Amino acid sequence: MAYFDQAATTYPKPECVYSAMDKFNRTCGGSAGRGAHNRAQSAAAIIADTRKRLQSVLQCPSKQVVFQPTATIALNVIIQGVIKSGAVNVYITPFEHNAVTRVLHPYLNDGKIKLHQLTVTDSYEYDITSIQSQFAVNTPDFVIVSHVSNTIGLIAPAEEIFYYAKKYGAITLLDMAQSAGLISCNVGLETIDYAVFAGHKTLFGPTGISGFVMKPALKLEPILFGGTGYESANQTMPVSIPERFEIGTINAGAIAGLNAALQWIEETGINNIRAVEEDKRQKLLSILTSYDFIHVVGISSSAQYAGIVSCLIDGISSDSAGSLFSELGIAVRTGLHCAPYAHQFLHTYPAGTIRFSVNYFTSDDDFRELDEALQEIEANL
Amino acid sequence: MAYFDQAATTYPKPECVYSAMDKFNRTCGGSAGRGAHNRAQSAAAIIADTRKRLQSVLQCPSKQVVFQPTATIALNVIIQGVIKSGAVNVYITPFEHNAVTRVLHPYLNDGKIKLHQLTVTDSYEYDITSIQSQFAVNTPDFVIVSHVSNTIGLIAPAEEIFYYAKKYGAITLLDMAQSAGLISCNVGLETIDYAVFAGHKTLFGPTGISGFVMKPALKLEPILFGGTGYESANQTMPVSIPERFEIGTINAGAIAGLNAALQWIEETGINNIRAVEEDKRQKLLSILTSYDFIHVVGISSSAQYAGIVSCLIDGISSDSAGSLFSELGIAVRTGLHCAPYAHQFLHTYPAGTIRFSVNYFTSDDDFRELDEALQEIEANL
Repeated sequence: MAYFDQAATTYPKPECVYSAMDKFNRTCGGSAGRGAHNRAQSAAAIIADTRKRLQSVLQCPSKQVVFQPTATIALNVIIQGVIKSGAVNVYITPFEHNAVTRVLHPYLNDGKIKLHQLTVTDSYEYDITSIQSQFAVNTPDFVIVSHVSNTIGLIAPAEEIFYYAKKYGAITLLDMAQSAGLISCNVGLETIDYAVFAGHKTLFGPTGISGFVMKPALKLEPILFGGTGYESANQTMPVSIPERFEIGTINAGAIAGLNAALQWIEETGINNIRAVEEDKRQKLLSILTSYDFIHVVGISSSAQYAGIVSCLIDGISSDSAGSLFSELGIAVRTGLHCAPYAHQFLHTYPAGTIRFSVNYFTSDDDFRELDEALQEIEANL
Repeated sequence: MAYFDQAATTYPKPECVYSAMDKFNRTCGGSAGRGAHNRAQSAAAIIADTRKRLQSVLQCPSKQVVFQPTATIALNVIIQGVIKSGAVNVYITPFEHNAVTRVLHPYLNDGKIKLHQLTVTDSYEYDITSIQSQFAVNTPDFVIVSHVSNTIGLIAPAEEIFYYAKKYGAITLLDMAQSAGLISCNVGLETIDYAVFAGHKTLFGPTGISGFVMKPALKLEPILFGGTGYESANQTMPVSIPERFEIGTINAGAIAGLNAALQWIEETGINNIRAVEEDKRQKLLSILTSYDFIHVVGISSSAQYAGIVSCLIDGISSDSAGSLFSELGIAVRTGLHCAPYAHQFLHTYPAGTIRFSVNYFTSDDDFRELDEALQEIEANL
C-alpha cells in the first residue's frame, strides 16, 4: 500500500516515536499529576519536557502549552470559550474544517455570532487590501485562520491577517493542525492569541495527543469540567493554566511518543523537513499533471502550499475513486475532507475531490506505485 | 516501586495490551473512518470489534458504544447534554468525583439545577427506603451513580436505585470508571440509560481511550462539534450514533490496546478477576489493620467493596504521606482523590486520606514491600 493520505495522519512515524511510547507504557505507566510516587513523577517530567519542546518548535517560549486529546476538542474549547465571552463578528478563511465551522454553527443559528469569510482571490491569494476593508466595515471580534488548508494545502499569510485583526483588538486563533512542526511560524508573536496543534499529523506523534498554546494572561471560560489533580476541594475550575483546561487523566503514553517526535523534528530540522516535503510535492504534481485525465484544483503559482494536492479525474467520481485507488494499492482520501466550505469555494462541491498528500517519508517506491496505478487507470478509461 | 495506585491507572497492563498497541501503531496507523484504503479499513475493523467486545463485557448488546478520549469528557458530554434538555432535580451519590460535581457546578450556580445527595447510612449502606422518600418529595429528573467510589471502593446498588428512579422517568447515568470489566453488571437493563467506562483503569487498556454506552433511542444534545468523516456537507452534527459524538480523529492505536485488554478479560473471566482482586483487598486490609497507628476509613461489614482502601495514619498528614511512602518505594495516592464530597461524608475533609488500591496484578512482593515500609514507619514514630 503506497500511502498518500499523510494529511489524515502521518505514517510511518519516526521509529523513535514507536519505541518511546512502548517503553513508556511498559516501564512508567503512572498517572501524571495524580501521585507523589516515582511513576507519576516520571510521567510529569516527560510532560513538562514535551511542553518545552513544543514551545521551541512553535517559537513561543512565553506562551502556555495546553494538552487536549484532539485538535477538534482544542478548537471547541477555544472557540466556544471565546464566543461565551461575547465575540460577535467572527472571521474565518474559505478553507475551514468542520472542526471549526460545525462548532460555530449552533451560535450562528442562534444569532449569537455573525460569520464573515476572509477574501481570497481566484488565484488563491489572500487579498489583504480587501480584508482590511472587511475589518473596517464589520469590526472583527474573533479571527480564525486555518494555517494550511487540509483540502488543497494552501498556506495562509496568518501573521499579516492577524496584524490587521489586532488593530481592532480581535482575538486570534491559528489552526495549525496541518502545519505545526512543518511550516516555520513565529507563534510567539503578540498578535497570535491561540494556536492549535495536532500531535498525530505534521508533528509526527501518535494519535491521542494534541492541544493548543495560548497567552497566559488571556481569560478563557472553560466549557469542559472535571478533576485536575489540583485544588480538588474547589468546585470551580482552577484559574491557573494549563490546569484549567487539562481535565481527567492526561495521555502520558502518547505524550512520550510526541516527545520523541519533537526530538526527531529538532534533529532533522523543520526547514529541512519542509524542503523535503516540497520536493515530494513537486514530484507528486509532475506525476499527476503528466496525465491528461487528471485535473489538479486550487493551484496557483503565486501561492504557497504544503504537501497536499486535490484533483478531479475525468470519468471517475470522487466517491468511487477511493475504493478504486485502494484496489490499486494507493491510499488516498476522497470527498469533502470534512471541509465543505472549501469545496464550495473551489467549485468542487458537493462531490469533492481526490486528495493526495505527501511528506518527508513519502518514498520513491510510493511514487512508482502511484505512477503504475495511474497508468492502469488510463489504460482502462 | 510497589504499586498501590491501581485506582489512578492500572499497572502493569496485560502484556498483550502493549504488544497489540505497538503492532497496530507500526503496521496499521490508518485514520479510521477517514479513507477507503486498507489502513483506514483495518483501523475501522478493530474499532468495530472493540465495540462488540465492550457490549459483551458490559452485557449490553443492544446499547451503542461511543468512544471518547477520557471518562471525564464522556461525563461532560452526557451530563451537560442531559441538563441542556431540561433536567432540574439531579441526584448524585455522596462519593462523586470532580468529573461529575465540577460539571454540575456551573448549572447549580446559575440556578438551572437542584442537587440532591442519595442517602447513605453511617454504616455505608445506600438507604433504599430513604431514597424512595427523597424521590417522592423531589421527583428525580437525572440520577448519577458512581458505581465504585474512587475513595473507599464502596460499590453502589445502582440497579436498585435506578429501578426506583425510573418510576419517575428519570434519566440514569452509571459512572463505571472504577468498575467496568471488574464488577459484573447488567448494563443492558432498560433502567440504565448511560454508562461511562475508563479504558485505562479496570478495563486494563491504555490511556487515551474511554467512552460510554447508551440506549440508541435517547436524544442527547451534543456539546462538542467537529468532523466525523460522515455527512460532511451537513453543518449540524449527524443524528446517527456513535457518529454524533465521535468527533475528530479517533485514537485507533489506543483502541487496539483496549481490544487486547478486553480479550484478556474474556479469557481470564470477569468473576475470576474480581475474586482475585477481593483476595488482594483482604490481604491489604489484614496488613493495614495489623498496625495500631493506621486507621482504615469507610469500611463496614454490611457493604461491598472493590480493591480500594482509604486510611489515616497517626502523626502523618495525608499531605506528607505521599512523599514519605514514595521514598520507601510504595506508590500510593493521598489527599482528596478529586472527590471532596466523599471526604466531607467521611469526615476526612479537607486533608483527605491515604489511598491504597490493589488489583489482579498486585503481587506478593508488593505486599512484602508494603509491610516492610509500614514496619519502618512504625519504628520511626
